[in-house]
Amino acid sequence: MLFAIRMDVNLPVDMDPTVKADTLLREKAYSQELQRSGEWLNIWRCVGEYSNLSIFDVEDNERLHNILWNLPLFPYMRIDVTPLATHPSAIAAPAPG
Amino acid sequence: MLFAIRMDVNLPVDMDPTVKADTLLREKAYSQELQRSGEWLNIWRCVGEYSNLSIFDVEDNERLHNILWNLPLFPYMRIDVTPLATHPSAIAAPAPG
Amino acid sequence: MLFAIRMDVNLPVDMDPTVKADTLLREKAYSQELQRSGEWLNIWRCVGEYSNLSIFDVEDNERLHNILWNLPLFPYMRIDVTPLATHPSAIAAPAPG
Amino acid sequence: MLFAIRMDVNLPVDMDPTVKADTLLREKAYSQELQRSGEWLNIWRCVGEYSNLSIFDVEDNERLHNILWNLPLFPYMRIDVTPLATHPSAIAAPAPG
Amino acid sequence: MLFAIRMDVNLPVDMDPTVKADTLLREKAYSQELQRSGEWLNIWRCVGEYSNLSIFDVEDNERLHNILWNLPLFPYMRIDVTPLATHPSAIAAPAPG
Amino acid sequence: MLFAIRMDVNLPVDMDPTVKADTLLREKAYSQELQRSGEWLNIWRCVGEYSNLSIFDVEDNERLHNILWNLPLFPYMRIDVTPLATHPSAIAAPAPG
Amino acid sequence: MLFAIRMDVNLPVDMDPTVKADTLLREKAYSQELQRSGEWLNIWRCVGEYSNLSIFDVEDNERLHNILWNLPLFPYMRIDVTPLATHPSAIAAPAPG
Amino acid sequence: MLFAIRMDVNLPVDMDPTVKADTLLREKAYSQELQRSGEWLNIWRCVGEYSNLSIFDVEDNERLHNILWNLPLFPYMRIDVTPLATHPSAIAAPAPG
Amino acid sequence: MLFAIRMDVNLPVDMDPTVKADTLLREKAYSQELQRSGEWLNIWRCVGEYSNLSIFDVEDNERLHNILWNLPLFPYMRIDVTPLATHPSAIAAPAPG
Amino acid sequence: MLFAIRMDVNLPVDMDPTVKADTLLREKAYSQELQRSGEWLNIWRCVGEYSNLSIFDVEDNERLHNILWNLPLFPYMRIDVTPLATHPSAIAAPAPG
Repeated sequence: MLFAIRMDVNLPVDMDPTVKADTLLREKAYSQELQRSGEWLNIWRCVGEYSNLSIFDVEDNERLHNILWNLPLFPYMRIDVTPLATHPSAIAAPAPG
Repeated sequence: MLFAIRMDVNLPVDMDPTVKADTLLREKAYSQELQRSGEWLNIWRCVGEYSNLSIFDVEDNERLHNILWNLPLFPYMRIDVTPLATHPSAIAAPAPG
Repeated sequence: MLFAIRMDVNLPVDMDPTVKADTLLREKAYSQELQRSGEWLNIWRCVGEYSNLSIFDVEDNERLHNILWNLPLFPYMRIDVTPLATHPSAIAAPAPG
Repeated sequence: MLFAIRMDVNLPVDMDPTVKADTLLREKAYSQELQRSGEWLNIWRCVGEYSNLSIFDVEDNERLHNILWNLPLFPYMRIDVTPLATHPSAIAAPAPG
Repeated sequence: MLFAIRMDVNLPVDMDPTVKADTLLREKAYSQELQRSGEWLNIWRCVGEYSNLSIFDVEDNERLHNILWNLPLFPYMRIDVTPLATHPSAIAAPAPG
Repeated sequence: MLFAIRMDVNLPVDMDPTVKADTLLREKAYSQELQRSGEWLNIWRCVGEYSNLSIFDVEDNERLHNILWNLPLFPYMRIDVTPLATHPSAIAAPAPG
Repeated sequence: MLFAIRMDVNLPVDMDPTVKADTLLREKAYSQELQRSGEWLNIWRCVGEYSNLSIFDVEDNERLHNILWNLPLFPYMRIDVTPLATHPSAIAAPAPG
Repeated sequence: MLFAIRMDVNLPVDMDPTVKADTLLREKAYSQELQRSGEWLNIWRCVGEYSNLSIFDVEDNERLHNILWNLPLFPYMRIDVTPLATHPSAIAAPAPG
Repeated sequence: MLFAIRMDVNLPVDMDPTVKADTLLREKAYSQELQRSGEWLNIWRCVGEYSNLSIFDVEDNERLHNILWNLPLFPYMRIDVTPLATHPSAIAAPAPG
Repeated sequence: MLFAIRMDVNLPVDMDPTVKADTLLREKAYSQELQRSGEWLNIWRCVGEYSNLSIFDVEDNERLHNILWNLPLFPYMRIDVTPLATHPSAIAAPAPG
């Protein structure tokens, strides 16, 4: 089941550099693990913004919330969720790729 | 070069049924041709809305505008454009696939 | 899988009375059939507005979109979709009732 | 009398961990007590957000305000209130379940 | 139980003058009957706008919706509902007057 | 001359408790004095919000601004002002009560 | 008593030319009469918009509403009202001129 | 050349009292100097808000920006700029007074 | 004096084709004449939208309003005006080119 | 490929003066280097705001994001990106100048 997720990151300008570096490292590892397992299909940077647009393919709403809630950057993010369905004009299966 | 495009369709409730059917047919053919040629990477329906979220991979801004401007449904759409770039956490190449 | 759906209805003031009455009848029958089958859990009127707040329990995003897209009033509605998950403070199962 | 309540929580990123843990514990106990007494009918997590959608069944406006004002998380919340009424298409009584 | 209601009226500029005059007459009679019966406590014009701010004192949400839904101008209005409660600084009883 | 005033209070979560208690006491005394003198006609709590809706009856704009500017909570408030006039459907005099 | 009023005009594109010309003539005469009598202190065009910003000096809210309600263009306008008071830094009397 | 400028002031609640008093004194002197020189035509307080509406008569955009950028309160303000032109219904010259 | 102008065009879907073609021809001629005379410095299409972003270099506000008001497409446009000034980091003169 | 970029700067009022001065110096040098190399075509100050409107001419989205992400003021900015294309009424080449 596909979802488009936009994440806007807002780090405090006075965030402790060590905490910041550690959080970003953990965020990257967390994201890449989910990309490898096939639930986080795509992640793109929105040009000029500390934001990303991502496509998730998950079992259900519970799983999606569990993934997002545990993002290391979650306390610093505004997240917007758009459930997706197959478009009648799509030539491919609903899952990208 | 990737762009996320959201299209919100607003057809007049009193639109002539023949014009409507013809426009939708042409829109579908136009979209599928661009999907086959590789410029319109994905198209998903936004659940509960007469809207889609699409990913385009185009040569440049001029080409993107040319594609969107010539959509048969263009006069009935509000279009929102988000330029995309590679995300540093992405494990794959920027193009989905 | 639960979703909160808000529907805002906007009928043209000059809508043909027969078409209007027929559309409303079909909307009511359609809604009640889904309430009986257990997918449309609740429907409440928002006080003072031609709007409702509904809770759906559906198999997946595809099914939800299929239900909403075929609402007889769909062409006259603005629909807002909020995917729901279990709240850690909830004492009951996620499904209401 | 039914109300739909959306609560958006915004905890300071530098909140004292003990205060935070204690506040969350008290919030959970407070919510569950009201769920058991039958005034807080449902509470769902909004996917990807530190937010919930709840349905309350209360005697009147005074009681609803008294409940919300005394939420341990009240100082950290934005609350949106929608009074509900019976929908003419509803097959069941206005109270869910 | 008190509610603040703001009503914004938007009549079509090409509305039939007889229909318009009749609708406004019925609206006035309907409003005055409810003022006399004590449910519509106050109605004020918002300066420079085709809008009013009103205070209602009703039994419950159902009654309030029933009153608003049957306003002769309802199809031409946007209505905003704010449930009210006693303010701790108020020196009088919650009902005005 | 009547005005509807909505005040939204936003106290810092780390406000000094003594300062806070003192400010709230002075706010209450200030409000009640103006209610007794007849310029602050009504004050209602907006359910679920740290906000009030008030009706003022003042000599002119200068007096209204003077009252609001000197509210002990003024530095913590967002204030929205709606000038009111007699509504042609009102059965009573413009002043409530 | 001073008020800043912004008026945004929205004439239907298919408005009858004679009705339009007549309405604009009456609007101009109405405005100039009030400028001469001293209640409509200033009227400026907002650059690039079919809008004006005006300053009124009127007896009270009732008078202001009466003036605005009777503008020949009222049914085609959105009007925004800002009550003004003396600014402590102003070197002149509150009334311009 | 006329401009309408709205300034919304937002001073930190914990601003140092001496810095605050000094800044406000300098702001007042700065404003009054420009009022005397004829570039700052009017300044009005917006009722109930820490805001003002001002009319400036300046040589060009450069001069206007230079004036606003050097306001002692500039770092604490949100400023909204509306360029003005002569209104065809105005009976007087474009400059007020 | 420079201004950034964004124009959003909204043509009625049922506009008469001859009127439309003629209006667009006149708009193009009007724009190109002002480009040649040096007042309309740049015009760019906003990708995916029936909108343009333009830079004007004009004598004053009056001239800018006169140009915009007389655009053949003015009745079908929403126009947003941003006055520009020299940026301290600019290496060139304020006029582009 | 052209883009219009609006940058709104929001520096903390209590920013360390040395850090602030250094950041602004680096921002200016960074901007001027890109202006000289031909990628940052124009930069204008938006009158009365700590904001600029800029035109960039870059190879692709990746390059634009790289430039913006490395702005010394990036952590203090909100950035809005509008991709531009040739306008059919433009008499010159799409690149300004």
